[in-house]
This record gives sequence, structure tokens and C-alpha cells, in this order.
Amino acid sequence: MELQTKPVVAITMGDPAGVGPEICAKAVAESSILDLCSPVIFGSATVWDQLRSRGLVPRDIPTISLVEWRRSLHPLGPVLIDVLEGEVISFEPGTVNPACGRAAFEFIQCAINDALAGKVAAVVTGPINKKALNAAGINYPGHTEIFTSLTRAKRTCMMQWSEELTVTMVTTHVGYADVVKHLSEERIFDVICLTADAMRWMLRREPRIGVCALNPHAGENGLFGYGEEEQLIKPAIARARQIGITAEGPLVPDAAFTPFMRCNYDAFVTMYHDQGHIPFKMLAFDVGVNITLGLPIIRTSVDHGTAFDIAWRGLAKPTSLFQAIKVAVRMYLGRATTVIR
Amino acid sequence: MELQTKPVVAITMGDPAGVGPEICAKAVAESSILDLCSPVIFGSATVWDQLRSRGLVPRDIPTISLVEWRRSLHPLGPVLIDVLEGEVISFEPGTVNPACGRAAFEFIQCAINDALAGKVAAVVTGPINKKALNAAGINYPGHTEIFTSLTRAKRTCMMQWSEELTVTMVTTHVGYADVVKHLSEERIFDVICLTADAMRWMLRREPRIGVCALNPHAGENGLFGYGEEEQLIKPAIARARQIGITAEGPLVPDAAFTPFMRCNYDAFVTMYHDQGHIPFKMLAFDVGVNITLGLPIIRTSVDHGTAFDIAWRGLAKPTSLFQAIKVAVRMYLGRATTVIR
Repeated sequence: MELQTKPVVAITMGDPAGVGPEICAKAVAESSILDLCSPVIFGSATVWDQLRSRGLVPRDIPTISLVEWRRSLHPLGPVLIDVLEGEVISFEPGTVNPACGRAAFEFIQCAINDALAGKVAAVVTGPINKKALNAAGINYPGHTEIFTSLTRAKRTCMMQWSEELTVTMVTTHVGYADVVKHLSEERIFDVICLTADAMRWMLRREPRIGVCALNPHAGENGLFGYGEEEQLIKPAIARARQIGITAEGPLVPDAAFTPFMRCNYDAFVTMYHDQGHIPFKMLAFDVGVNITLGLPIIRTSVDHGTAFDIAWRGLAKPTSLFQAIKVAVRMYLGRATTVIR
Repeated sequence: MELQTKPVVAITMGDPAGVGPEICAKAVAESSILDLCSPVIFGSATVWDQLRSRGLVPRDIPTISLVEWRRSLHPLGPVLIDVLEGEVISFEPGTVNPACGRAAFEFIQCAINDALAGKVAAVVTGPINKKALNAAGINYPGHTEIFTSLTRAKRTCMMQWSEELTVTMVTTHVGYADVVKHLSEERIFDVICLTADAMRWMLRREPRIGVCALNPHAGENGLFGYGEEEQLIKPAIARARQIGITAEGPLVPDAAFTPFMRCNYDAFVTMYHDQGHIPFKMLAFDVGVNITLGLPIIRTSVDHGTAFDIAWRGLAKPTSLFQAIKVAVRMYLGRATTVIR
């Protein structure tokens, strides 16, 4: 009897019409992934069949039904769970399709339940299409909101991780003018804590967290802005330091991401979407991993969309998915050995 | 008789207590600068004497009085104009001093007058200290405001130039929350025009201008923000295109500065300070040039401050000043051969 010791990682196939299925197929054929974990694709057997017939499956894997999966203990190698139970979805690659939107949602739902039940160590998500989701009557703006809602998480935030730079966001998908009203000492403190916890799991040591200011020049002693640095950011940093987190700031935003400053911090807490995303995409365009922090489960994701323009042609780069799987395993193993604050 | 054909470039010494004097001394000893132009330092003869006695003058140059300078035609080589007319200012290197603030202001004033009179081709400014300026009762926040006021310029904007990336700002030194109320179609249009003119002088061809959106994902069709892209930025781009400017956008801000996109544009118009400064400082920390566009004269500047902590020790890197001088000459020669819109 072989003993399964590698963590089981759920990979959702994403929207069947996008690049998700083909990059999943590349992942389960990749030895650096198989060395780390047992990948389990939450997807559709009929989509996999089509993928194989198009020559997009470099290494075939067994397909099992949901019932078999529920009965089994640990899978001994990569496997595909037919979440749709044999149902055939007809779709055109690269097009918005409500059946694809619904299928993608079911893959996620199933993976989240198994993660909550402890049957998988982490969920890594393939790309979904917002329009297909909405066409299926599923009204979430994206993955993060689905995960937050289905796991009943209280405080979550987005992390963008790469070897070069890691950033988290205090506010994410809100307009420029709405950022200020979403900032509070409490929220900034929460994001510092979530960032520190995640980085501790990844690095297995106390991380150094840089917290960005909101205003140019960090407000330059009250010259710019309305004291957001003094009233919100500094108190949040002080509270984080009181509980032992190595947080510094508020950092002058345009100086924070220079090569020298990047060496000083393991991760940066940013106040708004583009403050973090502009430097991140400059340095990690193809290799970034999107992580939702604050969930009761580990969830990482590719950093790209369904890429309908190149879907089902074998052109999609799987690097971001590979990174997302590796980071998920790293967080899982790190979390098991560190205390959650 | 030798014929002077190189443009005469005014270099203001900056605050005497800062790194300005020593980098000026390095500039007039640099052959790549002397090949391009006749540099004229607007400064103080007694400061120069002190600099020499400290071993910070690699190549001595003649000092002339203001009266001699006014009488002379073109200088045949580098020269220092004693704007203070022999007045001795006593100061400690690296400290805020009202006498230094006043002196720095007089250097600038004198250089601006000579540029307006056509006696110098451009003004390149050494770093000044805001606190020293204010201590001397001169209440400008910085160079840009001094130049705008003394030249009575109507519409100006800041450009940050480097070989890697060039950005201009629709709003600059205002707090995060105040940006939106400073945005208007007119202002965005003005900055696009100023950017296109300056880049045309530099490149001697029609430049490609990328105009950034304000909101994350460029607003994602109204999902984020209050329609700033539709109501302000798009109409401004359309007007610019009507007068023949190759402007595109609104660009998704976090995608605009990726390596691929940077190849598509010669300069980016950004909506707020950090949208432009974050990517700029990541790519051009030590080699950036600050340019004020929209003045009746050409003005470039070092991209750093007085650096009091290392002043008068010969440690300051002159690279940003060298670049500022070279860009000023390039703009001057380019402007002479292109039509101003």
C-alpha cells in the first residue's frame, strides 16, 4: 500500500470556453507540480474528452464521478472529478455561454465545500468569465466575492504575489473617488494582519510589512490630503506593532517600490487598487498569483482572465497557474506549522 | 575669432548648503556636457571659492560679475556668474539657512530673466530647499510655481522624463481626495497638447501619447467611478486627435506601464501624482529629469532634492543633472525646428 503524503490541491477548470481547461491539462502533466502535490481537477469529463480529441491533453488522467470522489480517501495521483456528472455542455471555444458560466460556478462551489470539509488542502482557481456567470443568473462580480460569501468569511483582502513583489489592497474594486470613504483604521489594521499572517506562512519567519501612504509624499506633514496618514494609517500601524507585527510606514508611495525599498519589505499594504497593481503588473505581468486572504480555506488563482481570443489553441501560458499551485502548497504547509494570530 | 555655435545653458547652483554646488562643478568638468553646450552657472563666486578650497572643483572655470555678463555676447566656454555680486553668505553645509534660500531664489530669478530675454537657451535648475526658501520669506512651494509665476505662464504641467519612461501629470501636488475636483476636459486636453509638443521637440517626429484612465480597469464600463473616463478623458483625447495628436486611451492604469505597453507609447499622460510617479521612480530612480512644460522658456531640473545628509562631501551623483542639461539642449534644438501648435 502506497502512503499518500502530498497535499491534495483542488484546481477548478474555470470557464470551459476559456483557456482554463488547457492550462489545467498542462498542470497535471508538469512534474514540478506532481512532485509537490496531488492535483485534482474539479471540472467536466466531457470537456476533458473534447480537450483530448483536440490534442490539448499532454498526459491523460483518470476521470471519476462525484460519488466515487466522495467515497475515496486520498487520490494517489492526478484525477479529474466530473462535477457535472456526465452532463454535456455544448459551447463554442472563446465565446460567452451561460451553460459555461453555470458549470464554472459549480466547479468552484464543489471545490469550496471539499476545502471546508478538509478533503482538499487548498483551492486553485482557473479563470472565469464575469459575463458568462451573469448570463447564467449568477450575480457575483468575481471569484473573491464567491469565496467570501460561500465560506462566510468576515474580513478578506486581495493579495498579488510574485517572487519580485507582493502587495495587498485595503480597497480593491471601487472607483478612485470612493476609496477614501472605504478607508478606516480598522480595515487597514485588518489588512496588515492578514498580510502578515499569509507572509508568515510563506516565509516561515516574521515578515517585514511596508504600509503605503494614501497621499503624494505621504501627505508631506499635512501639506497634501486630509490627514489620512495621521488619523488612519499611523494608528493602524501602531496597533499592528503592538501585537508584534513588523509593520512600517506610512511609506511615500512613489518611493516604496524602487529597487532599494523593495529589498526592505516582504510585502506592501497598499491603499487602493492601482497603487498596488501598477507596480505589481510592471514586475510580474505573466507570473503573478492572486490570493484571497482571510478565508477559512486557502485559495489562490491565476492572475489572468479567460483569454477567449486564444482559447483552445494550445497557446495559453500555464506559468501563472503553476505558480498559483505552488504558492497554495507553500501556504498550506506553512500554515500548518505557524500559529494563527 | 572663434565662433560660438553651441547653445548657452543656464545652470542654477541651487541652495548653497545642499548638493547643488558640487554637482554643478562636476557638470562643467564633464566633456559630454561641454561638447553639447556652453554651461553658465548662475551662482555665487564665494561659494565656488569654498567649493574649490574643499577640493570639490575638478576643473576650475572663470568667474564673472553680473555687469560683465550683461555686457558680454556669448561666453566661449563654461563660466560662473556671480549673481550675488561678491556678497559673502555664511552657512553650514547641510543645514537650513535663510541666506541660502534667498541666494537660491536670486540665482533662479536672474536665470529666468536671461532666458526670457533670449540670452540663454534654457534653464537647468539645481536643487533648492523649501524650508530655506520659506525661512527667507519667499513663499513658493517649489521651482515649478516660481517659474510659472515669474514667466506668467498660463498652462503648465510637470513632465518626468527618462530613457525608459516619460510621464506627465494632469494634477500634481494635491491630496488624493482633491484630484477629482481638479480634473476637467480642458485641463486634460491642455496636458495632452503640452506633452505632445515637448515630445515632438525631443523626438523630431509625431509622438504617440498614451492617456491613462482615472479608475481601476478604466472604470470597466461604468462599474467603478463616476464616468470620469467617458465624461472627461475621452472627450479630451478626441479633441487632441482632432488637431492631429496621436493620443490613445483611456488606458487601463495597471496595464499601461507593463513592458509591452511601454513600447507602444512615447509618453503617458497620468491623472494624478502617484499614477505617474510610482512607475517612473521604479524605472528611473537616479536618472530622471523633471521638466516644466508650458513655460515660454525651456526649464529642466534634477530629479532629487538638496540631499543635506551628504552635501559638500563629494558623494552626490551628478547623473540626474547631466541628463537634465542634455534634455534641455535636445528640447531647445528640437523646438527651433518644429512648429508650436
